[in-house]
Amino acid sequence: MSGGQAGAGRGRPGGGQFGPTQSGRERPGIARTDRPVDDLLIRGGSVVSVLTGETFEADVAVRGDRISAVVAPGTPREARERIDARGQLVVPGFIDSHMHVESSFLTPAGFAALTLPRGTTTVLADPHEIVNVCGADGLRWMLDEGRRTPQTMLFGVPSCVPALPGFEVAGAELGQSDVEALLDLPGVVGLGEVMDYRAVVSGDARMAGVVGAARDRGAIVDGHCPGLTGAELSEYLALGIDSDHTKNPVPVVVEKARLGMHVQLQEKSLSAELFAALGALPMRPPISLVTDDIAPDAILARGHLDHIARRAVELGMPPLEALRAITLTPAGRLRLHDRGSVTPGRRADLVLLRDLPAFAVETVVTGGRVVARDGGLVEGVPGIADAVSRPATASDASDGGTPFGDTVRIAPPDAATFRWRTTAPDGPRRELAIRVNAVDTSTRIDSVEVEVRDGVVRLPPDTALLTVIHRHGVAPGQAFAPVVGLDLGDGAVATTYAHDSHNLLVLGTSAESMAAAASAVVRARGGIAVARGGTVVALLPLPVAGLMSEAPAEQVAADAGAVRAALDEWGYRHANAFMSVSTLALPVSPSLKLTDRGLVDVERRAWAVAGEGA
Amino acid sequence: MSGGQAGAGRGRPGGGQFGPTQSGRERPGIARTDRPVDDLLIRGGSVVSVLTGETFEADVAVRGDRISAVVAPGTPREARERIDARGQLVVPGFIDSHMHVESSFLTPAGFAALTLPRGTTTVLADPHEIVNVCGADGLRWMLDEGRRTPQTMLFGVPSCVPALPGFEVAGAELGQSDVEALLDLPGVVGLGEVMDYRAVVSGDARMAGVVGAARDRGAIVDGHCPGLTGAELSEYLALGIDSDHTKNPVPVVVEKARLGMHVQLQEKSLSAELFAALGALPMRPPISLVTDDIAPDAILARGHLDHIARRAVELGMPPLEALRAITLTPAGRLRLHDRGSVTPGRRADLVLLRDLPAFAVETVVTGGRVVARDGGLVEGVPGIADAVSRPATASDASDGGTPFGDTVRIAPPDAATFRWRTTAPDGPRRELAIRVNAVDTSTRIDSVEVEVRDGVVRLPPDTALLTVIHRHGVAPGQAFAPVVGLDLGDGAVATTYAHDSHNLLVLGTSAESMAAAASAVVRARGGIAVARGGTVVALLPLPVAGLMSEAPAEQVAADAGAVRAALDEWGYRHANAFMSVSTLALPVSPSLKLTDRGLVDVERRAWAVAGEGA
Repeated sequence: MSGGQAGAGRGRPGGGQFGPTQSGRERPGIARTDRPVDDLLIRGGSVVSVLTGETFEADVAVRGDRISAVVAPGTPREARERIDARGQLVVPGFIDSHMHVESSFLTPAGFAALTLPRGTTTVLADPHEIVNVCGADGLRWMLDEGRRTPQTMLFGVPSCVPALPGFEVAGAELGQSDVEALLDLPGVVGLGEVMDYRAVVSGDARMAGVVGAARDRGAIVDGHCPGLTGAELSEYLALGIDSDHTKNPVPVVVEKARLGMHVQLQEKSLSAELFAALGALPMRPPISLVTDDIAPDAILARGHLDHIARRAVELGMPPLEALRAITLTPAGRLRLHDRGSVTPGRRADLVLLRDLPAFAVETVVTGGRVVARDGGLVEGVPGIADAVSRPATASDASDGGTPFGDTVRIAPPDAATFRWRTTAPDGPRRELAIRVNAVDTSTRIDSVEVEVRDGVVRLPPDTALLTVIHRHGVAPGQAFAPVVGLDLGDGAVATTYAHDSHNLLVLGTSAESMAAAASAVVRARGGIAVARGGTVVALLPLPVAGLMSEAPAEQVAADAGAVRAALDEWGYRHANAFMSVSTLALPVSPSLKLTDRGLVDVERRAWAVAGEGA
Repeated sequence: MSGGQAGAGRGRPGGGQFGPTQSGRERPGIARTDRPVDDLLIRGGSVVSVLTGETFEADVAVRGDRISAVVAPGTPREARERIDARGQLVVPGFIDSHMHVESSFLTPAGFAALTLPRGTTTVLADPHEIVNVCGADGLRWMLDEGRRTPQTMLFGVPSCVPALPGFEVAGAELGQSDVEALLDLPGVVGLGEVMDYRAVVSGDARMAGVVGAARDRGAIVDGHCPGLTGAELSEYLALGIDSDHTKNPVPVVVEKARLGMHVQLQEKSLSAELFAALGALPMRPPISLVTDDIAPDAILARGHLDHIARRAVELGMPPLEALRAITLTPAGRLRLHDRGSVTPGRRADLVLLRDLPAFAVETVVTGGRVVARDGGLVEGVPGIADAVSRPATASDASDGGTPFGDTVRIAPPDAATFRWRTTAPDGPRRELAIRVNAVDTSTRIDSVEVEVRDGVVRLPPDTALLTVIHRHGVAPGQAFAPVVGLDLGDGAVATTYAHDSHNLLVLGTSAESMAAAASAVVRARGGIAVARGGTVVALLPLPVAGLMSEAPAEQVAADAGAVRAALDEWGYRHANAFMSVSTLALPVSPSLKLTDRGLVDVERRAWAVAGEGA
């Protein structure tokens, strides 16, 4: 008896009885469920807390797709499966908050097969490559394919299709109502990178409408604004566009962080100077490491987010901050409150590492299930096992077997296609030229002295010819421009992977090599080819929308490696040759770019005219 | 001319014309909107970035309810209204991620009037006090009242009404289906603190159902688990309950932070030892400062979140971290991605401070509008101006004029009500006693030697009598317990604000004083009274649900101050006397508490029985 309780035992209308005399000391009427057995128990490892930065010995238990406990090592627990993690670190699955699946030249299944063993368990993909080619159907297909894999593959709706309306013709156009309808699809969490930042800061109503529609839905709005600063940066942010993954001068990165831009650093943005500047700030702003565009041979050889994190650490980012920048911080950016840390209640996306600064991935768990070990997938991973048994290469398959296998809607071009005809009078004249650099994808505005003879423009010997040919069958068009800054022998590269409209881009020093490379690509129903002396020396077939392949990742990586080597041998030496070539057609990336309609002065968002803007 | 464009001018089906010859260098067909004039321009101040920790001179422009620009000082901009902020810091509005409006004894309008001038612009309120009294109607009324004020007042659905079912009878009960229906109300963002942590960790199915329903909706789930640690903490977190605002030993705070619990520190939790421990961690975990329960006289005298931040800094929290802990971090916790920093695109909730470590608030802007200056509201703030013109005190008003003015459904009790009758035989016996401390609201289990004479328990002289009387008219009940640890003269305190069932709690040393205080409270239709020598010496009328007053904040604060002073004079000396008294009835707060049904052993979640658990 705890003392006389005047009211005890009188009961409550419709309820149970009260007081210790009625039901003993146990609480009356509560339903209990037995603690369920865990599905997986990871024993003996050390957990790295991305919250406190501590590393501590703990067992990690998983029930269903969630972490059910993080407890002292050796705590007795029943579990259906156990992993011995002695000597290993248990860290959260890696999260990429800005990337494009198409840059891997692989379909979602192939991408997951290649990157899950590297620890990437969640990505936000902006599928603007396929959507520029195939429209909304392309996004729906990516959603379906992504959902089948054990990687969480979320998507943004491409905001700029085409990238610069009025200056290029892609395979599709998305208007505001199209974007709004797609924002409501399951698996869509945001608006893809708003690349036409000039439109935004000049108050373009269409762009404001699209961004406003996303914001009203509470969607993430992804930015793209290289070098944007000051009052213009405020305008861009004020619209609600609050991330940027482009390369910026160090002071601009700090300005963007200070003003609330979620800073996303990709490999080309990493530098010792940047980490020194960030380290000198009184507080650490939220920063994510992202992959943006990485080719499959580079993923195989060097890694995915694990590689970016390693590079960041090499350049001075503290290892714990690098880990947070591929886990908790991007989870927050993606508003995925259910992941990003090894803590109870969160999704069981886990990576077992041999050590931290090296980000050496050994075992990968997604949704509570082991999907990769020792750099490779385990047997029978759903959504992937069936995908890799599809036709080996697109060129072997019939159109019917390849999704979006008919998007190259031109005939194999002959050498005459690669002669730059003009109505200008014969004689010497100065033409604007695109100056390429060997490090990043920006170009500079330059000019060269050309000679017009018989209505054909002839370039000086150290200059290559670039042409972009409309390939979607929407409205025929072709444009030309000289390219300088490269020391190329006889040869050419042709590609249908040419941001963002993905028309057929051909760069070369002879009409014969250009015709050979272009024809090989057209016959493969898309891809990238290099020709030397009029003969094709390397070909990567990309028959899925002219962008991707269903072949096994290793084969695609090998073909991509061969193309990269052929480019290099030809003289196209660049830190990221695929992106350098393919963005020659991207009219929202500084400074001078060529579309199927003409030469674009990106900064001024205008057709480039000789004598101005150089 | 940028070079001959083979396709230029051919046009596009249904689209515009292409190429420089058609429309010059301007992009064709884009709609432009002129940059609108700003509504407010805050000039000459220094912005504190809670992202990078930098303080930098900048002008802050506001358009509508959003920040439109943060730009170099003196940048020319048109604006309808200007504020000279020279010598001031511009920081984000303060955000409280865990609090109870009712603890201010004010309605939402009164609370906003009192705390907006202190810089509090957003709160997440758990209205479990009024809901324990009035049920779902209480929540709906709070939502409506809160929406009228310029403070963002978000609400959680009380998860535990009553706090400990089976051990107390409140004015209402919320079942799982009730909770689910309320979760969908606009303005509701989460599930209120899950206080019955013993039920959670023992696998109670009802609790799991309520929490699961909230989680399925993506709602925030607020915790309450003092001292919970180890495997039990994992169980609690695994259910998805991931914040805790209770007082914990320093190592438990660190454990909770490490395991992903959002740590919310209220004033009683702050200590130099804690900040030393947090400062020694390799990384800063997300931590919010919260107010939980603060009485109006304390808010007037010392402040609200500004006071907690000042205290934290005094005890060793770096000022920038304290600022982040009342802005960006709680915004993240509440998933309010639209606020928490002074950055373009975010909501214009701004505070102008004289200096940072002192958190001296001068001007407050919510949604782009100046609402407070120099410690007071500006004229005519909507939702507040009308509220303070309501009847001055509840005791002056008729029942009809007071919302929920009829919730004290008992007659004024006489002295006989405060004699502890028992069926135990006459003679000495040992009874369990509640031991109160002077610092926090936890109690310890103790016992005293009492004397039963003529069926009445007589206490030793250094012991007070506590009784809780059911006041809601649901099911009559009364229980008694001795209280030790206080050195009280003759007197009593009576209150209908008695967590969480808010029955009539009376603590005293004489039946006459207890009857006087209790009768005054009943006649006031709720409130808190102190009596000495059989006469009431202080009364705070709380006629709105027996919890709140519609009187002006200053008057309520003055009455509350008088009650506090009377308690102190009587000998009830405590850092937070209101909470200490009123939580004597809270059966989920350690360790021994009294409800209208009996004495509860909180840790064991069982009726307390002498000889066990002490």
